[in-house]
Amino acid sequence: MIDFSLFSTFDLLGTVAFAISGALAAMSRKLDLFGIFIIAFVTATGGGTVRDILIGNNPVMWMENTFYIYLISIITFLAIIFRHKINHLKTSLFLFDTIGLGVFTITGVEAGIENGLSPIISIALGAITGTFGGVIRDILCNEIPVIFRKEIYATACIIGALAYVILYDLNVDNDVIYVVTSLIVISIRLVVVKFKIALPSFYIDPPDEKAS
Amino acid sequence: MIDFSLFSTFDLLGTVAFAISGALAAMSRKLDLFGIFIIAFVTATGGGTVRDILIGNNPVMWMENTFYIYLISIITFLAIIFRHKINHLKTSLFLFDTIGLGVFTITGVEAGIENGLSPIISIALGAITGTFGGVIRDILCNEIPVIFRKEIYATACIIGALAYVILYDLNVDNDVIYVVTSLIVISIRLVVVKFKIALPSFYIDPPDEKAS
Amino acid sequence: MIDFSLFSTFDLLGTVAFAISGALAAMSRKLDLFGIFIIAFVTATGGGTVRDILIGNNPVMWMENTFYIYLISIITFLAIIFRHKINHLKTSLFLFDTIGLGVFTITGVEAGIENGLSPIISIALGAITGTFGGVIRDILCNEIPVIFRKEIYATACIIGALAYVILYDLNVDNDVIYVVTSLIVISIRLVVVKFKIALPSFYIDPPDEKAS
Repeated sequence: MIDFSLFSTFDLLGTVAFAISGALAAMSRKLDLFGIFIIAFVTATGGGTVRDILIGNNPVMWMENTFYIYLISIITFLAIIFRHKINHLKTSLFLFDTIGLGVFTITGVEAGIENGLSPIISIALGAITGTFGGVIRDILCNEIPVIFRKEIYATACIIGALAYVILYDLNVDNDVIYVVTSLIVISIRLVVVKFKIALPSFYIDPPDEKAS
Repeated sequence: MIDFSLFSTFDLLGTVAFAISGALAAMSRKLDLFGIFIIAFVTATGGGTVRDILIGNNPVMWMENTFYIYLISIITFLAIIFRHKINHLKTSLFLFDTIGLGVFTITGVEAGIENGLSPIISIALGAITGTFGGVIRDILCNEIPVIFRKEIYATACIIGALAYVILYDLNVDNDVIYVVTSLIVISIRLVVVKFKIALPSFYIDPPDEKAS
Repeated sequence: MIDFSLFSTFDLLGTVAFAISGALAAMSRKLDLFGIFIIAFVTATGGGTVRDILIGNNPVMWMENTFYIYLISIITFLAIIFRHKINHLKTSLFLFDTIGLGVFTITGVEAGIENGLSPIISIALGAITGTFGGVIRDILCNEIPVIFRKEIYATACIIGALAYVILYDLNVDNDVIYVVTSLIVISIRLVVVKFKIALPSFYIDPPDEKAS
């Protein structure tokens, strides 16, 4: 089940980073052991699960490969044990998380193209796969998803996904596409965070709730 | 992909109205550009997506027809640009929203019947298709869904869906069914809002949380 | 559609208990009639719905069997009528709820095994089927799911599901498996609540929201 190609290694790093981000969010909300594991699990697998449900790929990815459930269990325990030291890993975690974002985006775009969906839908699927783990984590923790509020997180996904679709159309080799797309997502995210760039928001007063 | 039959035009108006209601909700919560677009998108497509997932119609409807993603992108930008003037459109928006409710309900009932589901389940599927875009919007915005709290919004769906099933059983022509069902949903909603009719609610003190 | 085997009777009791727990949660949040019904419905059917979506069993279970929608409608009305007397039923409800937990867990594990999933994934599917009705109920009511915060609710599921998988592997008769698994889940839950045992939680200060 496990292979050690570049892509798989990236997928692994991304899963680890997303699981840790989920475990940290759960611990900061005083959830119990089960809650911490579940939040870690859905953060790491949620994007891929939504992707598979939307395109009808059943059973969803983590059900056919036990690797994820074991990996995330181990990571959850490590995150709990080292919960007070995890701050020292902040930079590594941020890098892993960004790698995960890039890799998960790629798996989404790829699934879209393989299922014969149009380029723009494949890009959307890539962005959903990259971001929805975090969205579900925030919903379960009773927060408005952070990616809707700040940081050009999803935008990095979308631009990377766009690059993927263009390179694919130009018949570029798959491995090259993976590397270039990942590098684009990662670079944008690093630049955005470094220079604290944010998407604009447009505030209005709450509307009356007539429409539903 | 686009046709201009009565039904398609109604579907379009409904999508526009739901997308605007999502964009307004997002802006009133200070979400960024990406958040505004996503909330607009899920409000407009959420009901149909849940419908397709429940009956196993994959890929879901907006993935096979790029029309929705382009339409909702344009509507989101227009909603942002005219965000301070949108109040003047309140009446039109309310009408579009109600039309959308009627049309989306019909697509749900129709999908149920086509998949050989029983009448009561088809009605439930109609109500879900009509209302769940708004439900997902409110969950993402961290609110208890407004349709659970006030207005006989879903009730209009359910009565319209019931009419659909009865007319279908009487072998009435499809176009007639569409028009009659839509008119019923729209009329109920107009009367309800005009006379501020509400479903009863039944308050009890919070139970202890033993059961889950 | 209805049969009166032991398993079906347990399934019925579980559905009733879960529907009541949903209706009570909705009433304590001042939802209207429609909201009360929907929350009762998703609490009772949510676990099975998520199970069916994850493994690709479409249409989902409550769409193919009208029994659930009628049963839950009746239970919702009874719960509303007797809302001030329901406290007297607390012990019965707790027992039904626990039975439901056991039965729903079994249907999940069984579905996993029948679909050729590995034991650990089948256990996970059992736990999801047992608990996600309550998770969706709490999300719709805008709360962090109670099972992530306290009580060894899910742990009882997981241990029961583990027993199921082991007994199944030993070729034990299905009826015996059902009874033993249910008894394990129910006993654990009773002991846990009786002695107020809780899973540990591990609090940390909220992390900065860099990772998503």
